[in-house]
Amino acid sequence: MAAMDRRRRVIIEGVKPEIDCGRFPIKRTTGESVRVEADIFADGHDAVSAVLLHKREGGDWVESPMMPLVNDRWEGEFTVQQMGRYFYTIEGWVDSFKTWRRDMVKRVQAGQDVTVDLLTGAKLLDECTGRATGDPAAQLAQWAGELRGDGSLESRSELSLREDVAAVASLYPDRRLATRYAKELVVVVDRPKARFGAWYELFPRSWGEPGKHGTFRDVAAHLDYVASMGFDVLYLPPIHPIGDAFRKGPNNSVTANPGDAGSPWAIGSEEGGHKSIHPQLGTMEDFEYLVSEANRRGMEVALDIAYQCSPDHPYVKEHPDWFRRRPDGSIQYAENPPKKYQDIYPIEFESEDWRALWDELKSVMTFWIGKRIHIFRVDNPHTKAFPFWEWAIGEIKKDYPDTIFLAEAFTRPKVMYQLAKAGFSQSYTYFTWRNTKEEIVEYFTTLTTTGVRDFLRPNLWPNTPDILPEYLQFGGRPAFITRLVLAATLGASYGIYGPAFELSDNTPRQPGSEEYLNSEKYEIKQWNLQDPWSLHDLIARVNAARRENPALHSDRSLRFHPVDNEKLICYSKTDQESGNVILVVANLDPNYTHAGWLQLDLKAIGLDADHPFQVHDLLGDSRHLWTGSRNYVQLDPKLLPVHLFRLRRKVRTERDFDYFL
Amino acid sequence: MAAMDRRRRVIIEGVKPEIDCGRFPIKRTTGESVRVEADIFADGHDAVSAVLLHKREGGDWVESPMMPLVNDRWEGEFTVQQMGRYFYTIEGWVDSFKTWRRDMVKRVQAGQDVTVDLLTGAKLLDECTGRATGDPAAQLAQWAGELRGDGSLESRSELSLREDVAAVASLYPDRRLATRYAKELVVVVDRPKARFGAWYELFPRSWGEPGKHGTFRDVAAHLDYVASMGFDVLYLPPIHPIGDAFRKGPNNSVTANPGDAGSPWAIGSEEGGHKSIHPQLGTMEDFEYLVSEANRRGMEVALDIAYQCSPDHPYVKEHPDWFRRRPDGSIQYAENPPKKYQDIYPIEFESEDWRALWDELKSVMTFWIGKRIHIFRVDNPHTKAFPFWEWAIGEIKKDYPDTIFLAEAFTRPKVMYQLAKAGFSQSYTYFTWRNTKEEIVEYFTTLTTTGVRDFLRPNLWPNTPDILPEYLQFGGRPAFITRLVLAATLGASYGIYGPAFELSDNTPRQPGSEEYLNSEKYEIKQWNLQDPWSLHDLIARVNAARRENPALHSDRSLRFHPVDNEKLICYSKTDQESGNVILVVANLDPNYTHAGWLQLDLKAIGLDADHPFQVHDLLGDSRHLWTGSRNYVQLDPKLLPVHLFRLRRKVRTERDFDYFL
Repeated sequence: MAAMDRRRRVIIEGVKPEIDCGRFPIKRTTGESVRVEADIFADGHDAVSAVLLHKREGGDWVESPMMPLVNDRWEGEFTVQQMGRYFYTIEGWVDSFKTWRRDMVKRVQAGQDVTVDLLTGAKLLDECTGRATGDPAAQLAQWAGELRGDGSLESRSELSLREDVAAVASLYPDRRLATRYAKELVVVVDRPKARFGAWYELFPRSWGEPGKHGTFRDVAAHLDYVASMGFDVLYLPPIHPIGDAFRKGPNNSVTANPGDAGSPWAIGSEEGGHKSIHPQLGTMEDFEYLVSEANRRGMEVALDIAYQCSPDHPYVKEHPDWFRRRPDGSIQYAENPPKKYQDIYPIEFESEDWRALWDELKSVMTFWIGKRIHIFRVDNPHTKAFPFWEWAIGEIKKDYPDTIFLAEAFTRPKVMYQLAKAGFSQSYTYFTWRNTKEEIVEYFTTLTTTGVRDFLRPNLWPNTPDILPEYLQFGGRPAFITRLVLAATLGASYGIYGPAFELSDNTPRQPGSEEYLNSEKYEIKQWNLQDPWSLHDLIARVNAARRENPALHSDRSLRFHPVDNEKLICYSKTDQESGNVILVVANLDPNYTHAGWLQLDLKAIGLDADHPFQVHDLLGDSRHLWTGSRNYVQLDPKLLPVHLFRLRRKVRTERDFDYFL
Repeated sequence: MAAMDRRRRVIIEGVKPEIDCGRFPIKRTTGESVRVEADIFADGHDAVSAVLLHKREGGDWVESPMMPLVNDRWEGEFTVQQMGRYFYTIEGWVDSFKTWRRDMVKRVQAGQDVTVDLLTGAKLLDECTGRATGDPAAQLAQWAGELRGDGSLESRSELSLREDVAAVASLYPDRRLATRYAKELVVVVDRPKARFGAWYELFPRSWGEPGKHGTFRDVAAHLDYVASMGFDVLYLPPIHPIGDAFRKGPNNSVTANPGDAGSPWAIGSEEGGHKSIHPQLGTMEDFEYLVSEANRRGMEVALDIAYQCSPDHPYVKEHPDWFRRRPDGSIQYAENPPKKYQDIYPIEFESEDWRALWDELKSVMTFWIGKRIHIFRVDNPHTKAFPFWEWAIGEIKKDYPDTIFLAEAFTRPKVMYQLAKAGFSQSYTYFTWRNTKEEIVEYFTTLTTTGVRDFLRPNLWPNTPDILPEYLQFGGRPAFITRLVLAATLGASYGIYGPAFELSDNTPRQPGSEEYLNSEKYEIKQWNLQDPWSLHDLIARVNAARRENPALHSDRSLRFHPVDNEKLICYSKTDQESGNVILVVANLDPNYTHAGWLQLDLKAIGLDADHPFQVHDLLGDSRHLWTGSRNYVQLDPKLLPVHLFRLRRKVRTERDFDYFL
C-alpha cells in the first residue's frame, strides 16, 4: 500500500461553476459574487462540514462556510472586489462534534441514558480545546469539564445541546483528514464595463463638412450628439492608413476610382501600419484630443483590432515570412474559394517566426493602451489561432487588468464559445438574427442560465456595418425600435452602428443581401442628424432607463414569462440588492397591433399574488395598476411596439397614504 | 514567451464518455464497443482531421479515424476484447492536403485558372512523400511530378481531384502541430457476466430436512431446482460463524432463545470470522463441493462480503484498535440514534492502524477468490470509506480482472453513484420502489441514456430478504409476475430472493413494514417447492427468453414507447448486430384489466411503417400481426399481466412463401 493517507472520506465533486474541468477561468466584474455549488458527502451517516476557500492572486486563502441545500448539494459564496485573478476551491471533512451533537438530540428526545455519551462529548471538546487558544480554549475546556463533571445528568444534557457550545466548537474542527478539492479554479475579474455598457460605432470620415473627409476633430465636435444619447463606448473602425493595392470602390466594387476612400479594414500603406493613423483622419495628437474629449463626457473610445494587411502594409516588406507564400513566389491573399480578396493578406499564425510575429501583434494592442485605449473590438478573431488569443489577452491583462476585449466572431457556436473561454471579455452573438419569440427565448435561456453565462458575456448588436438584417429591412421604424429595446434590455452590453441605426437606414445593396446599399465601409457618407424621424430621443430614453435601473446592469436574472400570443414576448430582469425590477413586453410584429395575456412568474420578480403593483412605462410614461400574475397588454407598432416597464411597489407612508415607489 | 510551441490550433473538448473529468474509468465488458464523441475544431476555415487512439494497458496505441457528425462534433469507436484496463484519447490536426483538395473542387467547378494551385498541391504531395516509404512514397512522388508536369491543365486538374490520390495522401498527414487531448481516459473491461446475469439468493440453512439445519450438501442436492429456472448466479448470504452475544431471535427480537439460528450478518464467533465457515453449514470441503456442483450446472456462487463483526469475532480480541472505543472502555456498537444494534460492531476505517486493517479486509476477498469465488455481493458498502473500495477493488482486479463486485447500497443517489465510480461492477438500484409508469420511465431513462450508464450497471431486485415492497404485499401473484418480468427485461442483470419470490410470500411483519413476517434472516424456514402456484415455470421461461434474445443482454438500447393508458408501460430493447428486438408491454395494475394503444417508435426498433410484422409472446406463446406504429393491447392480470414479445420480421423465401423469422 502506498504511503499516502487514504482515510479522507469526504467526496467533493460536481463543482459549479467550473469550465471544462477547470481548464478555463470563469468571469466576473468587481463587486460581483461567485456562488459555488458542489456535491459534498461521505460514506455512512456522519455529519459533514465544508468551507469555500477563495483568494486573490498572491493573497491568502479566505474561508467561508458552505451550507447544505438538498440531496448532498452544498453552496457557498464570495465576492470579488478587485480586478485581476482570484482562485477558489473547497474543503470538506467528517465533523465528529456535529455528528455527536446531532445524535445527542435524538438520544435526549428518546429519554436514553446518555452518561457515556456525555463523556464522548467531553472528549471531543477536549480535542477542540487543543486546537483553540486564548478565551475560546478556556471556554471549551470549562464546558468539557462540566460535561464530565458531577452536575446532574439533566443539566449536563442541557449543556450538551446548547447552541453556543456548538458554535464555539464548530470553529475548531479536526481537519487532519479533510478532503481538499483537487483543483484551484480561476476567476478573471474585470471592471464593471466588461459587463454593462452601451456602444456606439461610427466612421469618423463621414463626420466632416459636406464633401470633405471627416477627421478626429470633426468627431470631437459631435461628441455631444453621441453623449446626449447616453452611450458609454465610442467604437471606431480601424483608423490606420488604408492600402492602395486592389483598393475596393463603392459597394465593394473591384476597381476603385481615384479619390475613393477604400475600406478601413485594408490596413497598411507606405504611411504605416497598425500603429499609425490614416493621415486624412488627423494626427496622433488629434486622436489623443478626441480620446480626452470623449472621456470628459463619460465615454471611452474603443479601437478595432484587425490582424490583416493590405499588400502595401510595411510588414509585407519587412517580414515576408509572416505571410503564406504561393509556389509562384507571390504572397497568398485572402480567399474563400472561389472568392478572392486580393486587397487583404492574412497573417500566417503558424509562421516559423511565430514568436516574433505574436510579440509584434501583441505590441499593437499595448501601443494603443499607451494612448489610453482600454477597450478593443477584435475583428474576426475566429480566423486567428485560439492559442494566440489565450496567450496575448492573458499577458496583456497581467499588466492592464482593466483592458476589455470584444470578439467580433459570427461563426459556429463552439468556435464563439472557445474565443470567450480563451479570454475575450465580451462576444458578439446571434442576437442579430434571432427575431421570433421561440428563437429569442431559446437562445437567451442558453446564454443566461447555463454554464455559458460564466465565460461568455453577450454584447448585442441590432445592426453592424456588415449586417443589415432582413427584419430591419422589412420592418421599418417599428422594427428598429423593437430591436433597440430588445438589445438594450436583453443585454447588459449592447451597441448600434450609427447614425445608420437612429436614422433607420434599411436599404440593402440588393434583395436578399444583408449589405447596406452604398455601404459606409467603402465610401464617405453624409448623415442628416437633424432628421425629425431620428430615434435619437428614444435611444436617449432607453439608455437613461438602463443607467437608472440596476436590474439592467447584468444578464443573470433574465427570466421569460409566458404570453398567449406568439408575437408578444415578455421578460423581466431583477436586481436583488435594490429590489429593482424591469419588465419588458415587445410586439415582434412590426406591422400589426397585437394583444395578449401575460402570465407573470411573480415569485421570480418578488411579488405577492394579492398585492396590487404598478408598472410604469419608461418610454411612453404610461402607468398601469396590475394585480396578480395574469395581466393584459396591447401594443400598436405604429405608436410604440414595446413597453419598458419599471415595476413600482405600493408603499405605505407614515401618514397612511399609499403610493408606488 | 515560453519555449513551448503554441501553434497547435486544433481544440479538442467535450469528450464523451468521460466521468468527472477523467477521474474515474468507464466500464465495458469484453466484446463491447466504446463510442467516443468530441468537439474538434480549429480557427478559420482549414479542414481538420482527427483520430481516436486506444490501447490495452501495457500495449501500443492503435489509431482509428474519427468522422464529423454535425456542428463540430466528431465520433469514433473501438472495441475492447480483453479483460483489464484500456486507455483512449484523441488527436486532431489542421489538414493541409484535405483543405487544398476541398478548395480545388470549388476552384475547378468555378472554372478558375488553377495553374498555381496545382503547384501548391504538388508541394503538399512532396511533403507527404517525405513522410511515406516504399511504394506509397514512390506513388506520391509520381503524382507530385505529374501535378507540376507538362501535361494539359485539364488532365492535371483531374488528377488533383482523384479519390485515390486523396486516399494515399491522407495516410501521411503532417501531424507536427497536432493537438493531443490532455487526458488518457480509462476503460475497465469486465467479463460479460458483469453486464448480463440472473441471480438467485437463498439461505442454505433452510434447505435441509424438515427440522434440521440445512447444509451446503443440502443446497447441492437442490441445485437442479435452481438451475432449472435458468439462473446464472447463486448468491449466498454470509456463510461465516454467527456470534452469540446479543444474538437476535425470530422477527429481530432482542433476546434469542437457545437454538435460535441468529442473523448470518452478525459475523464471527469463537469458531472464526470472515474466512471461516459456520460449522452447521458444513466444512470448507463441503463448500468447495457446492461450488463445483454449481459450476457444473453453469452457475457461479456469489458470496456476501459484510465488513462488520459480532462482539464474538476474533478481530475484537486480536485487533481492538480496529473498532471505535467508547469513553467507558467498551467498544462502540452500531447505532442509528436512538436505535442501538448491540449485536454488531462496525469497523473503524479511520483507525490509526488502517493500513493493516485495510490489508486484512482485502485479504478476506482474496481468500475466497482462492476458493474459486469470483463474484461478491457487498453488504452496505456505503457505510465504509469510499477510498477503501477504490483501493481494494483496484488492487484485486489487477490480479483477478474477472472478479465482479455488486454494491448493496440503498441510499442517496450520489452515494450510490460514487460507489459505482469507485469500482463496483454492479449496483442495486431504486427499482424495488419504482412502480408507476412515470417513476419507471424517469428512472431508467436516467440510468440508460445519461452518463450514468458508463459507470453504473444496474442489478434489479423485485425483493430481497430485507425488502418486501408494498407493491408485492398488496398486488399478490400478478404483482410478482409483473415485477419479475420488469426486472428481467429492464435489467440485463437482475435477481430474486427465493424461494420467497417464486412462492409469492408477501406477508409483512406488520402493516407498514417492508420486513418479511418470520423473516429468514433470523430463523430457519421450510419452503414448499412443490407449491402448484409456484412461479418456477414462468421464471424458467423468462430466463430462457433472456438467454435466447441478445437484445436483453444489455441496457443501452432501452427505449420507452408511449401508451395512452397510465397503467400500461411499453418498452423495447434491440440488438444491432443480430437485429433481435424485444418488446415488453406490462399492466402495472395487478387488480384490473387494462387496454390501450401503443405508439411504437418504429425507427428505434428498425421497422418500416408499411410492413406488417409479428409480435410473438414468449411467455403466453400468442402471436399478433401488427402493422405500423399504432397497435392495440389488452392485459388481464388474472391471466398474464405482461407481454414479453419477440418481434419477428417477414421473410420472403426462395419459394416465394412469406414467414416470420
